[in-house]
Formats: sequence, C-alpha cells, structure tokens
Amino acid sequence: MDTEFKSFFDAAPPLRDSLDVSRKVKEFIDQNSQLSGKGRPIRVVCVTSGGTTVPLEQRCVRYIDNFSSGHRGAVSTEYFLKAGYAVIFLYRRGTCQPYCSFLPEDSLLECFDLTEESNVQARPQHTEALKRAIRDHHAAVEEGLLLKLPFTTIFEYLQILQIVAISMRGLGSHGIFYLAAAVSDFYVPWESMEEHKIQSATGPLDMRLAPVPKMLLVLREVWAPTAFCISFKLETDQNILLKKAHMALRKYNMHVVVANELSTRKEEVIVVTSDEEITVHRENQVEEVEKPLIDLLVQKHSAYIEQSKHDSSN
Amino acid sequence: MDTEFKSFFDAAPPLRDSLDVSRKVKEFIDQNSQLSGKGRPIRVVCVTSGGTTVPLEQRCVRYIDNFSSGHRGAVSTEYFLKAGYAVIFLYRRGTCQPYCSFLPEDSLLECFDLTEESNVQARPQHTEALKRAIRDHHAAVEEGLLLKLPFTTIFEYLQILQIVAISMRGLGSHGIFYLAAAVSDFYVPWESMEEHKIQSATGPLDMRLAPVPKMLLVLREVWAPTAFCISFKLETDQNILLKKAHMALRKYNMHVVVANELSTRKEEVIVVTSDEEITVHRENQVEEVEKPLIDLLVQKHSAYIEQSKHDSSN
Repeated sequence: MDTEFKSFFDAAPPLRDSLDVSRKVKEFIDQNSQLSGKGRPIRVVCVTSGGTTVPLEQRCVRYIDNFSSGHRGAVSTEYFLKAGYAVIFLYRRGTCQPYCSFLPEDSLLECFDLTEESNVQARPQHTEALKRAIRDHHAAVEEGLLLKLPFTTIFEYLQILQIVAISMRGLGSHGIFYLAAAVSDFYVPWESMEEHKIQSATGPLDMRLAPVPKMLLVLREVWAPTAFCISFKLETDQNILLKKAHMALRKYNMHVVVANELSTRKEEVIVVTSDEEITVHRENQVEEVEKPLIDLLVQKHSAYIEQSKHDSSN
Repeated sequence: MDTEFKSFFDAAPPLRDSLDVSRKVKEFIDQNSQLSGKGRPIRVVCVTSGGTTVPLEQRCVRYIDNFSSGHRGAVSTEYFLKAGYAVIFLYRRGTCQPYCSFLPEDSLLECFDLTEESNVQARPQHTEALKRAIRDHHAAVEEGLLLKLPFTTIFEYLQILQIVAISMRGLGSHGIFYLAAAVSDFYVPWESMEEHKIQSATGPLDMRLAPVPKMLLVLREVWAPTAFCISFKLETDQNILLKKAHMALRKYNMHVVVANELSTRKEEVIVVTSDEEITVHRENQVEEVEKPLIDLLVQKHSAYIEQSKHDSSN
C-alpha cells in the first residue's frame, strides 16, 4: 500500500507552495491548541470540498474533472464552526465558499448596482444574504477559526491533505477528517502523460487511466491514525449505495461513511457506521440537511473522544 | 459532413431551454437591426468563450474539460462593444465575464467589508475595478448591446451556436463569429455512455473517445455562409502552431485564424489569413493584447463588408 502511494507521490509534480502551506497549517493548529481552554475549541476538523482534476497533458489543456459544486463542504463548514470547531477548509478553486450558498452564481454582477453618486450598492433583494456572507466569513477567518486552502488537481489535493494530516496528529482524537471532496478514481501517471496537447485526428482516441492509490487507507493508518475519519459515498444507483458504503467502511477502516444518492443528496443522507444506518432528513426548507448531519456527527465524535480517553487510561 | 453532424445532434440530449434561447437571440438581433442607423450598430459579433465539457456518464459525475479561463473572450467582448458592435457572448458557466478581468477570483469575499453600521462596502483597493465592472457591464446589458448565453457541455454549446448562427443569417456580411471557446475534440457518444457512475475497480480504465464532428465547416458552409468567421488555434508546441493554423484556415474555409501559444498567449498572437501572417503584440502593461487584435479584426471585417457589397453588385 505504502509503496504504491510513494510511487504516485514521487511521480507527481511537486506542490509549488508546500512550505507556505505547511507554515499556515502549523500556525493555525498551534494557535488553536494554545488558546484552547481560554474559550477556544481544541477540536479541529479538516473539511475537503469540491472535485479534483486529472490532467491529460503535462502542459495542461485537457483534464478529467469530477462534478461537485462544493455546496456540501461549504455548508458543513458553517455548521462545524457553529458547533465550536476550528475548520481547515481544503477546497477546489472556484467552488462554493462558506456562508455564500444563498448567493447567485455570478454574485458580483447580479447583486450590485451603482448609485447615481457612483457608489457600489447591494441590490435590496440580496442585501441580507450579502451581509451574512461577508460578516460571518470574514469573522471566522479573522478570529483564526477558518483556514482556507485551495487545490485544483488530484496531485495538489493529496499533497496538501498529507501536510494537514501530519500536522493534525498532535490533536489525537480531537481531530476530524470530513472528506466531502469528489476525488478522482483514475488518473494518467505523470511520466506517461503527453507533454504537448494531444492532437485531434480523424480516428477515435484511446486512453488508459490508472487507478489512483486509495488515499483513505494511508490517511487512516499512516498519516492520522488517531483522528476521527468520515468519508462520503456518492452513487447514482440507489441499489448499490448502501452495499458500497459498508464496503468502504470496512475496507478503509473509516469511523463513519455518509452515503448519498446524486438526485436526493440535498434532501437526505444515510450515516453508516459498523453497527447502524441512520437516515438523516432535511428538516425544513430554511435549513439544509447538513444541520442534522453535523449535529449527529458531533455526537459521534464526542463519543469517540470519550472512548479514546477510556482506552488510553486502561 | 452533414450526416455526421446530424447523427451527433440526434444522439445528443436535447437543449432544455431551446425555445427561450431562440426567443432571446431573435429579439436581440431584431432590436439591433431595427435601431440601426439611429446611432445603433448593425454589426453583431458572436463571441464564444471558455471550455466545453464532455460528460463520461449520462447522470454526470465525471467529465473531460478543456482548460480556458474565458479571459480572451471576456476582454475581446469589451473591445468589440467599444468598436460599436452588439455582442452575443456565448460563455462557459463560471468563467471570466466582460469588465471583470481586473477583479480577484473570489471577488465577493475579497472586495467587500461590512461597515460598523453593517453596510456592505467595497475595499478601497478594489473600488475602481468594481465600479468599472458593475457600471460598464450593466450598461451594455441594459442598452441591449450585450446578450449573455451560458453553456457547460459540448452538446449545449453546439446547439446554442446553431441557434445563434441561423438567427444571424439575415445580417449577411455584418455578422462575425469570433470562436475563442476551447471546444472538445473528442467525446463519448450519448448512446454508448454509461448510465450510472463508472465503478472504480482494481485495474486500469480503458476509454474510447470519438472525434467531435468538425463544427467549423458546418457553421461556415451551412449555418452562416455569409458571416465573417474567425477561429482560434491554441498549441503548446510553437513548432507546429503556424502549420496547424494554415491547415485550419484552408480546411474550414475560415476568413481568419488567430494562432496562439499557451505560454505566451497574453503577450502576442498571430493573425493568419490566406495571404498574410501578422503578429500582434500587447502594447503596454495597462492594455491587453486583445486591443490591437480587435482593432485589426475590425479593419479586416470592414474590408470584408466592402468586398461583399462589391461582389453582390457585380
């Protein structure tokens, strides 16, 4: 397992700003650890969000992408902050940001006008959503409770996740990984990738993609063996969803797998653990399904922390 | 040629809002035609912008994407408007918008603060760029000179382009197609596509992609035979760039091919016609390369209109 992963990492283009990322993550965790007990949370969650890309060419023009608006990760981040967690938000560039899910897509052009005095002014129907987005987002960042780290490719994603995981080790059972990102299953190994743009010809194009090494197992067993790990299983076929969720739970030794079906994922999800399946529904049209989901996961995390204390005192 | 294209269209998922798109395009062109001579342009350009996607599954989780920020198309739209054209901006959802290229990526969260009185206020360093974006963008839309039509997949892109092209026929030589979008060369035919999410297994994934029928030829010869057609050739390998640009010029009977190399595309482009190659450079750090490019293309379009008049009077 580890060799396969090592060769994937060795062949990947090195992360450009890895020292800067490491420094930011270390400072964020140090600050939250030092201030814990003084009204600050010691609990830290790494929320991953959005899809990863797989380049098909080294000088990248074409790539395979995984669909994800990042809505689940962004909204879950809000509820984790509300529950007293510090959040490392590892997100795909351009996807949904915490506190922004109620804004239209092209928010800048759709939410503002110029006044006659040539001042920038929010349109009345968007004013409340804008205020909430700007106030709550800026507050979380400025108070040092929200650290945002962007990625685009699978190579960037896995390298940043490794940095975060290793930095969070010292938190023991107080750390969570909430892996909502849609991670590529297949990739083109860097060394076998075309250097230049693939030329279109008259015939069909045959591509062979290699499976991405299973990061979940390395995360769980090597990078962050004491953290509470939650992964997601998205399927479009309801019939195989729970079976696949239980398989993932066992195979990667996850604490929780959140099962969701593409067409109903905003209405309900199923929280799968080794001894139960709990269906969580959206309670009303104002609050999202992430509210009861995060409530339940925080309970399960608290129980896990208690169990870990008990285990270590025996 | 036409059969190949017909079978591509027959197999594609039908455009959901095709009646609405047709109505908007018709109104836009009618309005600009009726008002021409009363200080309104009769010239209309369709600018395509951003990359198209190719779904790998019918209920789409994974897709192949073509990299394009949409910067070229957005900035070119500004210069076409300045030159007195009405613009149909056919753009990939989420890509760069006209007048917005000087704003940061997450413009909403990076450009605004809340005042103590809880009003939304632009941060001083972004105020001028914000005013320009909101003022100029809204003015162009409200004056009926800018029509924006979004797409995501290759199927949506080609169906909308067909609607626009057929609607623009009546403009004769006064219409331009400025095809800056990065269009997929390969796709998975809808009928041979997996219905559900492709399952990751232990082995490699082999994919066979079919070439997309060459839309340029159909556009030029069937949809819009009298319009002035400009296509783009992007390569990462400087050595084959001009050769490929000349091939495209002949093969698709384009009036102009704009050749650009990935790494230098913001500094220079080469305008290729059947009898010349003109290199256009960015003139300074304030104005983009699109300024001299559009100046030159407007000259060439004017010459084309004159030539068409002359041809039809003979």
